[in-house]
Amino acid sequence: MTTTWAPVPAGSPFPVQSLPYGVFSRESEQPRVGAAIGESVVDLAAVLGDEVFAAPSLNPFMAQGSAVWADARRRLTELLTDSSRRSTVEPHLAPLADVRLHLPVEVADYVDFYSSEHHATNVGRILRPGGEPLTPNWRHLPIGYHGRSGTIVVSGTPIVRPCGQRKAAGEEAPTYGPSTRLDIEAEVGFVVGAPSPMGARVPASAFGDHVFGVVLLNDWSARDIQAWEYVPLGPFLGKSFATSISPWVVPLEALAHARVIPPPQQPEPLPYLRDAGQWGLDLTLEVEWNGDVVSRPPFDQMYWTPAQQLAHLTVNGASLRTGDIYASGTVSGPDRDQRGSFLELSWNGAQPVKLSDGSTRAFLDDGDTVTIRASAPGAEGARIGFGEVSGTILPAR
Amino acid sequence: MTTTWAPVPAGSPFPVQSLPYGVFSRESEQPRVGAAIGESVVDLAAVLGDEVFAAPSLNPFMAQGSAVWADARRRLTELLTDSSRRSTVEPHLAPLADVRLHLPVEVADYVDFYSSEHHATNVGRILRPGGEPLTPNWRHLPIGYHGRSGTIVVSGTPIVRPCGQRKAAGEEAPTYGPSTRLDIEAEVGFVVGAPSPMGARVPASAFGDHVFGVVLLNDWSARDIQAWEYVPLGPFLGKSFATSISPWVVPLEALAHARVIPPPQQPEPLPYLRDAGQWGLDLTLEVEWNGDVVSRPPFDQMYWTPAQQLAHLTVNGASLRTGDIYASGTVSGPDRDQRGSFLELSWNGAQPVKLSDGSTRAFLDDGDTVTIRASAPGAEGARIGFGEVSGTILPAR
Repeated sequence: MTTTWAPVPAGSPFPVQSLPYGVFSRESEQPRVGAAIGESVVDLAAVLGDEVFAAPSLNPFMAQGSAVWADARRRLTELLTDSSRRSTVEPHLAPLADVRLHLPVEVADYVDFYSSEHHATNVGRILRPGGEPLTPNWRHLPIGYHGRSGTIVVSGTPIVRPCGQRKAAGEEAPTYGPSTRLDIEAEVGFVVGAPSPMGARVPASAFGDHVFGVVLLNDWSARDIQAWEYVPLGPFLGKSFATSISPWVVPLEALAHARVIPPPQQPEPLPYLRDAGQWGLDLTLEVEWNGDVVSRPPFDQMYWTPAQQLAHLTVNGASLRTGDIYASGTVSGPDRDQRGSFLELSWNGAQPVKLSDGSTRAFLDDGDTVTIRASAPGAEGARIGFGEVSGTILPAR
Repeated sequence: MTTTWAPVPAGSPFPVQSLPYGVFSRESEQPRVGAAIGESVVDLAAVLGDEVFAAPSLNPFMAQGSAVWADARRRLTELLTDSSRRSTVEPHLAPLADVRLHLPVEVADYVDFYSSEHHATNVGRILRPGGEPLTPNWRHLPIGYHGRSGTIVVSGTPIVRPCGQRKAAGEEAPTYGPSTRLDIEAEVGFVVGAPSPMGARVPASAFGDHVFGVVLLNDWSARDIQAWEYVPLGPFLGKSFATSISPWVVPLEALAHARVIPPPQQPEPLPYLRDAGQWGLDLTLEVEWNGDVVSRPPFDQMYWTPAQQLAHLTVNGASLRTGDIYASGTVSGPDRDQRGSFLELSWNGAQPVKLSDGSTRAFLDDGDTVTIRASAPGAEGARIGFGEVSGTILPAR
């Protein structure tokens, strides 16, 4: 098994098989690109000798394409596993506890999909009881919509409870005020590195040429605002106040051992959506509410794969830009303790979630903290962590 | 009346009362910021002596805020009206015919509203005959959604007919292929200059502090793709292949004389949506299809004003960034020849549009060119033009 000279405590999310990329700073230094190893961050501009890593985002590096990504990862792995390099590299490691982590990506466009059959079915049953839970198009295409890039924030950023317009069933007119049904959506985000020109399609088979890596994403959702606004043009202010992502981008290459065959698709998708590369991913998410793990959503149950989402996103000739992020949609499994939103977990409040302090919840209270983690099988039996995406709710202003 | 020493032919869209900003280049020069006067563009870095105008987009200038915008306009007006300055300024004028015009703004987030009552009613009648044409929320809030920033292109960029998935009524399963119902939406876009922080609301009264200026916008729409995909999360691939904007951004200050009282709103909007500043705008659009003017949509009939749209966009604490663009939604008036989309003009194909070459159209053919223009009352009785946004359809690839 490949071992590193760097200290990696047992159970660390960052073994040498992972090496996720992020943007960090110490004290008054400018933010720069680093990679996580154990409980440290490696200063990449210093150890790889490439100024592309002195940038305050991963974008310049990601724009260079998959051959450069592979080369950087190979060189970094060599530096961290060859003990003769320890003395030159070690001075450029900083304890994670001493650094500030920043938004790793300058986000271009943000798209959110809706690709868990269990989630879409649950939401359909809750919001349209008696009707067909899935819309007629759901099994034919990965449904998605554009979200607000400018309010994507890094893990740890406080989330101010949004205000807005909502109308409860039976009320005559809408009212204005703080959302009373503030929720999460536990998702996985895919970060585009290499762009594509307008007018060209990116087939599912080119997924690895364009997608640089993977983040955890919390699509905070104000259900009351969303319910009143979303017909006919989709979610808008119910989502656009904030979306949190993890500070670490796990390179796709680290997930080679997490690839699995996705669930069967029936009816068979149109040819442009076929994913011969089989980009199902065996990630297990973990949703923690005020310190209690309330759910473990399984990503390997997602109906549409990220390669199919990419093919769909570009089939009309839409271009890709470095820094585009597209998210999976809420990850929910078939069991109650695998649901990725509190709307589902509490079944719209009918089955409140009991926390270990004795309190119960349907949706988020002010002061609540939600943390999403994930792990996946890595090379040589290692377990790869994604770090976490976390946020605490502040009262409405 | 304020007159300029620069030649301005009668009927020019660019009298000295307008002075829209754009980004231009000559031959192998780097793109830089200019202002249009008559049939020329003024090199602003040269004549105002400020390197902020040497940038390849308006963003650095726009980020400086409304006091700087007003000052630059005042100084530029002085230079162009004081004949003693002619000899120093004139060398920095280039004929519009000799320059290339670029996308004027580095677009941050793009939002598209749906704020014409006539348009929303027409679409409702066409797509949901027998039902209520407007959804219950329509008169309570400006409905909107996020679009794709990365495919916003400058006027003149060819538009490749998009491919995608669609299912005609009565068909068993969806098929893949080029859109057969390619349409336009004649809109007005508002360009955000001064940002706002996350968690803060921007009231309607602060519209002029944040919005720098106005562009014309064509929201190209593939109706067949859109119809199959848009329930439940809104338009996605039916729109994301391309959105065209005019190269000239007309500063809000130039439109002071175009402000009018908007149509009455019933029921009265919630307090956060009240627009005491009355930002109705008396713009008249003109839609030309292969050289024939087929429609003149009146912007003064829009139900929701751009100031109300801005207040709504930020009421949940969503931040604004320099370069955000939000569009009005299709501008349609009450009369047939005031409709801003071909879906409405041809009433979904039932009333084909006859062109002067004898041909008829419901939607766009390959090779068709659509040009949208607009004008508005300016200071001292001048008529302010917006230039144009134009695009020609290329066959699907």
